[in-house]
Amino acid sequence: MYFVFCVLPSQHGMGLPSVAIVLHEVFKLLQAAGCSDVTLIRVGTCGGIGDYCDLLLVSPCTAIVIFYFSPPAQSALGQPVELPIAVDQDLVRDICACASDTTDDFKVKVGKTYCAEDFYQGQGRLDGSFCDYSKEDQLRFFNKLQSLGVCNIEMESAAVLAMAHKVGVKAAVVCVVLVDRLKCDLPTLSVQEMKTVENFPLQLVIRYIKKQLQPDNS
Amino acid sequence: MYFVFCVLPSQHGMGLPSVAIVLHEVFKLLQAAGCSDVTLIRVGTCGGIGDYCDLLLVSPCTAIVIFYFSPPAQSALGQPVELPIAVDQDLVRDICACASDTTDDFKVKVGKTYCAEDFYQGQGRLDGSFCDYSKEDQLRFFNKLQSLGVCNIEMESAAVLAMAHKVGVKAAVVCVVLVDRLKCDLPTLSVQEMKTVENFPLQLVIRYIKKQLQPDNS
Repeated sequence: MYFVFCVLPSQHGMGLPSVAIVLHEVFKLLQAAGCSDVTLIRVGTCGGIGDYCDLLLVSPCTAIVIFYFSPPAQSALGQPVELPIAVDQDLVRDICACASDTTDDFKVKVGKTYCAEDFYQGQGRLDGSFCDYSKEDQLRFFNKLQSLGVCNIEMESAAVLAMAHKVGVKAAVVCVVLVDRLKCDLPTLSVQEMKTVENFPLQLVIRYIKKQLQPDNS
Repeated sequence: MYFVFCVLPSQHGMGLPSVAIVLHEVFKLLQAAGCSDVTLIRVGTCGGIGDYCDLLLVSPCTAIVIFYFSPPAQSALGQPVELPIAVDQDLVRDICACASDTTDDFKVKVGKTYCAEDFYQGQGRLDGSFCDYSKEDQLRFFNKLQSLGVCNIEMESAAVLAMAHKVGVKAAVVCVVLVDRLKCDLPTLSVQEMKTVENFPLQLVIRYIKKQLQPDNS
């Protein structure tokens, strides 16, 4: 975690429990510091569902996070907790407005995200250390997600959007699509391509931050 | 991750999703390398439930992991997966046999572990960025865990023990108790005390590993 002017970038590990710990502690820190009007943006990578997902396509400022099945995103005292998930639509619009169709190496799409609690079987991968279903089952799963309007899959958005909503912080998620899951399980990018592509969400969000800090010069 | 002779220590992050990713990839690596007769031991820290938990007490080689409510530890294709959890009792016995009542700064207890999917509300803490229950609710929760024979709470054992069982790897979990949750939410140890205590599980497990590598000299 670094503190840069009024921006607090932090790593959050992988999965809902890991990001939940970071968020609890960041929110406590912000409260102790007397911060107000806070904006939370997760930037990261994801798998895409569909043909709009290719190397140069940046995927959604997440508009809606859905669960295909209904797990408790969190529990309290051994009981499931229903934490409503909310995305700040003005924030999504303002982030998207920072993209340029003519000069950017990426495109931006707003869409639904499937937040999984696992990287392998939870996301329908066939290449884990074990797999209890077939390629056909996998495709049925992806088709179901597509029919629900899901554009991408990642592992942290539910905690980010639910916990931010709970404490009154506006939030959005910006992830770049590294792989079209309808075609394969893992990215086929080179190390250099991966470094370039992983920076796309940051490029967009840094533009948004600069605009907030210097609204007249942007 | 480091490879030291025939030992492969690895960090695994916090929470079930994070450790599940590491385990899938380690198991694939072991299979590709043609390894057999593999033993998996998670070492870490935890919260204790009960008066046997103090600074110098090392807590359980986990014998049984229980869920107070019944979440899917993992999902596949959007559906909950039932992964049976199993601890290798011979391994637990052999690890415990490496402790010394007379010279160690810690004691060893074998017991049940509550594997939570969250650090704050999931473990009944009152000091997160939000808390939707009272101190009395928290104590009822801990009493319920105690009545079920639970000795400690952590966040990774279910994935470790279920996934190892699934792929036929014998496994156990050794965690040191940093705090008695019946008394407080967070450890009150100094940085130096924390460093000392965090090493206790490693001391025990390294003895076990040495014994396996040099059975005649141990």
